[in-house]
Amino acid sequence: MALNRREFTQLTTAALVSQLLPNLNAQSSTQPLGYAMVGLGRISMGHFMPGLKDAKQSKLTGLVSGHRDKAEKNAAEYGVPTSAIYSYENFDSIRDNKAIDAVYIALPNSMHAEYTIRAAKAGKHVLCEKPMATSVDDCKAMIAACRDNNVKLMIAYRCQLEPTNLRAIQMIRDGMLGSVQAIESANGFNIGPDWRLDKKLAGGGPLMDVGVYSLNACRYLTGEEPQVISAYSSVIDKDGRFSSVEENVGWTMKFPSGIVASCNTTYGGQMNGYFRVHGAKGSIDMDSAFGYQGQHLTAQIGRDNRIDEPSTARDPSQFTRQADYFADCVRNNKEPKMDGQEGLRDIQYMAEIYKMAGVAF
Amino acid sequence: MALNRREFTQLTTAALVSQLLPNLNAQSSTQPLGYAMVGLGRISMGHFMPGLKDAKQSKLTGLVSGHRDKAEKNAAEYGVPTSAIYSYENFDSIRDNKAIDAVYIALPNSMHAEYTIRAAKAGKHVLCEKPMATSVDDCKAMIAACRDNNVKLMIAYRCQLEPTNLRAIQMIRDGMLGSVQAIESANGFNIGPDWRLDKKLAGGGPLMDVGVYSLNACRYLTGEEPQVISAYSSVIDKDGRFSSVEENVGWTMKFPSGIVASCNTTYGGQMNGYFRVHGAKGSIDMDSAFGYQGQHLTAQIGRDNRIDEPSTARDPSQFTRQADYFADCVRNNKEPKMDGQEGLRDIQYMAEIYKMAGVAF
Repeated sequence: MALNRREFTQLTTAALVSQLLPNLNAQSSTQPLGYAMVGLGRISMGHFMPGLKDAKQSKLTGLVSGHRDKAEKNAAEYGVPTSAIYSYENFDSIRDNKAIDAVYIALPNSMHAEYTIRAAKAGKHVLCEKPMATSVDDCKAMIAACRDNNVKLMIAYRCQLEPTNLRAIQMIRDGMLGSVQAIESANGFNIGPDWRLDKKLAGGGPLMDVGVYSLNACRYLTGEEPQVISAYSSVIDKDGRFSSVEENVGWTMKFPSGIVASCNTTYGGQMNGYFRVHGAKGSIDMDSAFGYQGQHLTAQIGRDNRIDEPSTARDPSQFTRQADYFADCVRNNKEPKMDGQEGLRDIQYMAEIYKMAGVAF
Repeated sequence: MALNRREFTQLTTAALVSQLLPNLNAQSSTQPLGYAMVGLGRISMGHFMPGLKDAKQSKLTGLVSGHRDKAEKNAAEYGVPTSAIYSYENFDSIRDNKAIDAVYIALPNSMHAEYTIRAAKAGKHVLCEKPMATSVDDCKAMIAACRDNNVKLMIAYRCQLEPTNLRAIQMIRDGMLGSVQAIESANGFNIGPDWRLDKKLAGGGPLMDVGVYSLNACRYLTGEEPQVISAYSSVIDKDGRFSSVEENVGWTMKFPSGIVASCNTTYGGQMNGYFRVHGAKGSIDMDSAFGYQGQHLTAQIGRDNRIDEPSTARDPSQFTRQADYFADCVRNNKEPKMDGQEGLRDIQYMAEIYKMAGVAF
């Protein structure tokens, strides 16, 4: 493609500005990032969209749903014009809506890849719920599509932005625990009827859905990648729920430094998400750790230093923070810390856990 | 050997009484069980012997030690005649001391087998500290020696007699949690200079010493035996402490019902012993679980039933209970629930954990 002089000058200047002065973008754009919500389920309507009401750098500008009625009702509530309501059939025409900068994908896991790639091709940035996808290949295709279309991709690991989790990470990095030796973590619940019990939609059971929090936590707490993984899986309740996905997974990981981590997840039991980190000088007990609110960090440093820090933040503040963090990444051309590679790694480790547990993935 | 008529009649009567009316033994013997303490270390002098002061069916009647001074001091405190002080050389002559019914063996792990067998041959019942021994073969030899010499053998799993642990077991058996899905447990501490760091004496590292609590708890909580086990081990602190034993072990077990259990142990970190049990209807969090005191059971049954039961018992009450329980087993010819087979099983599982973790055992 040949460029005339004026086009070339514009391109060069734009590239230079973008490279050398990325913050100019932010200063020149005071507009909040416009999100189109893709999928109107529990997490969308109950958490993400309410979170946008308090957002400073983000707002809802579009809706994608198979249910026109539900979409119109939400559009009215959030001040989204009906012209910005899309179906899954005409989804790709979001390309023509300049008010939509990004999409938030909250569809069943197996649909994450398709809609991430279609959004990228429509020139829209992508915030995608976890787990990133239901196969390693899908994750790689998502990363490639976002790279090729020059849009940002972030996986919605909200705990990596949550202040109490960040405080735990900082305590570890600051050496307050001394050398970390071991971590336990668990996350699960007793599931009722749910699309997540259908492997075609979910890709897997509790490991994919809630166990991924423990897996991801072990990685962000250690700052390391697991070197070896072993695992077992089981179905105890023969009540029809677990005909296509597992009920329980227990797994153990060893990290390069020698840290050992032992984790459980379940769809069949009461299991409030938590982690415990044991170091030479102290330990952290975060219980609960992964909820939409209610994080509670306690720590014992040596004999005498007892730390007790319950979070007072209320849902949907984690969603507000997440939306604004991604908006900042987009506006200031920063790579999100929870990027496609981060999501891909968890899928790779979960594939390994399933393999070790003898579960098809 | 030929018996005359009177001897035969006596034997038959005694055997019948013992078989049909075992409680007669208890009624006919109001004497407390006389224990000889074998090894005067922290657990003996700080816990077991103080525990005997409150015992109803047990008393201290002998001391075995390599330190005559220390033995004489303790003998004076506990009203034990100096004639009942033995060295390791003349240990076998406890056979001639009718005031000694049983021994409590609190020696380094690698010496458990020898002194159990010597005590059995001297006709004394054996209460032996855990871990039972440092090899499967030693455990089998101990069981055989006690059987052949018709003495009782109990391994000092005091948590199996501790009321808060028993309450957790009962809640599970009563179905309060519904079907149990998963357990996490950990137990460890940051060790200083100690004989337990010498593999020749200890047989292994934290797994043998404190990890065994988590292993045993998973077994008594489920009432099942682990079917498959995987494990990792590591040494993180290269400070000379871990030249012969491991620093950390993380392991995962799967039980026949499908319950998965994930556990950690350490000699390099702060790790208050606990377990969490997750069932369909509720969960138990016992923290701490394994200490000499301070057991604290909390449970959440469904949404509304919150149970909070801290133990008010104080050390050395667990040792009092343990001594009296074994005395009752001896006096009433009952097999202790923590018998030699129970100790052997844990050694077999720990051998498997070490094998899976690539640690020589």
